[in-house]
Amino acid sequence: MEKISVSKATLGRIPTYLNYLRELSPEKVPYISATTISKELNLGEVQVRKDLAVVSGAGRPRLGYETEVLIEQLEDCLGRNKMTYAVLVGTGRLGRALLQYDGFEHFGVKITAAFDCNEQVINLDSKTEILPMNQFDSFCKEHKINIGIITVGEGSAQQVCDQMVKSGITAIWNFAPCKLHVPGSVLLQNENLALSLAHLRNRLSHAQETPNEKI
Amino acid sequence: MEKISVSKATLGRIPTYLNYLRELSPEKVPYISATTISKELNLGEVQVRKDLAVVSGAGRPRLGYETEVLIEQLEDCLGRNKMTYAVLVGTGRLGRALLQYDGFEHFGVKITAAFDCNEQVINLDSKTEILPMNQFDSFCKEHKINIGIITVGEGSAQQVCDQMVKSGITAIWNFAPCKLHVPGSVLLQNENLALSLAHLRNRLSHAQETPNEKI
Repeated sequence: MEKISVSKATLGRIPTYLNYLRELSPEKVPYISATTISKELNLGEVQVRKDLAVVSGAGRPRLGYETEVLIEQLEDCLGRNKMTYAVLVGTGRLGRALLQYDGFEHFGVKITAAFDCNEQVINLDSKTEILPMNQFDSFCKEHKINIGIITVGEGSAQQVCDQMVKSGITAIWNFAPCKLHVPGSVLLQNENLALSLAHLRNRLSHAQETPNEKI
Repeated sequence: MEKISVSKATLGRIPTYLNYLRELSPEKVPYISATTISKELNLGEVQVRKDLAVVSGAGRPRLGYETEVLIEQLEDCLGRNKMTYAVLVGTGRLGRALLQYDGFEHFGVKITAAFDCNEQVINLDSKTEILPMNQFDSFCKEHKINIGIITVGEGSAQQVCDQMVKSGITAIWNFAPCKLHVPGSVLLQNENLALSLAHLRNRLSHAQETPNEKI
């Protein structure tokens, strides 16, 4: 099967599939079809088919998916069997909010340490260690860090980004509201919260201007 | 022109279009084409065409868009001429990070007040007023609040959501990692940060498994 990247929407449904499949006993239900899953979970069959096709390929004709294998593939997809390690730079309010959040590990990512150039926050009370920037490079190399999270301001984001690339980080999650430049080999994902809120505002004004036409 | 909802990606490019168009003098450049804009901004022409079609319709054959009108329509899209008011419930780290962020107003949304049931945080030093929950209903009705932002934990999110709906809020931006139930007339947008990070991890593991095949 050619492996293709899983969309955010599909990823979001995987925990639901897993909860359901784990409740089945694979000895009693060795195979399961997308049709059954969609009925049991009250989800659209086309959607379930597409999700499972991305994660596990086509399934066997008339049999469906081997339950145990499907569970493993869904778990792999969430990275549960192979933790990926991340560091965060910038321990302002947003940075600390992310450090405090403990939902990342359910999706296979652990924030190993945070860094800040402000010496006053170093070693403050936090469940994650906060280190000074001069330890960044050696820490990332030693701990084989793959993901860098940028929660500094716009002014220093590119500098932090360059430092991450130099230290071997290959995927960057950027919260600074600016365009970052990375080499082609590095994945960049921008998280613009203002844009998300703007999108909601826009949907709202659209809904207000075009009320239900059937009424 | 039939008005359709503008995608988040398109919204994100609108400030770029606006910056460029505002630098032109509408007297000297009364009309501008999607082709010109895409060349000047080094963006794909198909993308620019689609973006402008959503915001402003098709443009005039051989002339393009009336520059001044296009600027106005793009500004409307960002809500710059009509501020929408929001309140936030839950002033933990994430809530405070959002309150501190001043980029929302550029996209036409102002967080007017924040609410918390913890009396210790009420009236703490914050540029936005933090009020107790018993003032929520009267505040929202008096200030005609349209958007509610939920940054409380999973346990109380549905209760806060119900309160918002009761107080006339018609769009909810939910950061709690749970499924909320709202009436059909209320817009719900979930922001699952763990899922965003999981998506990046997934893209990363996919990139590692299928390195550039040309090499």
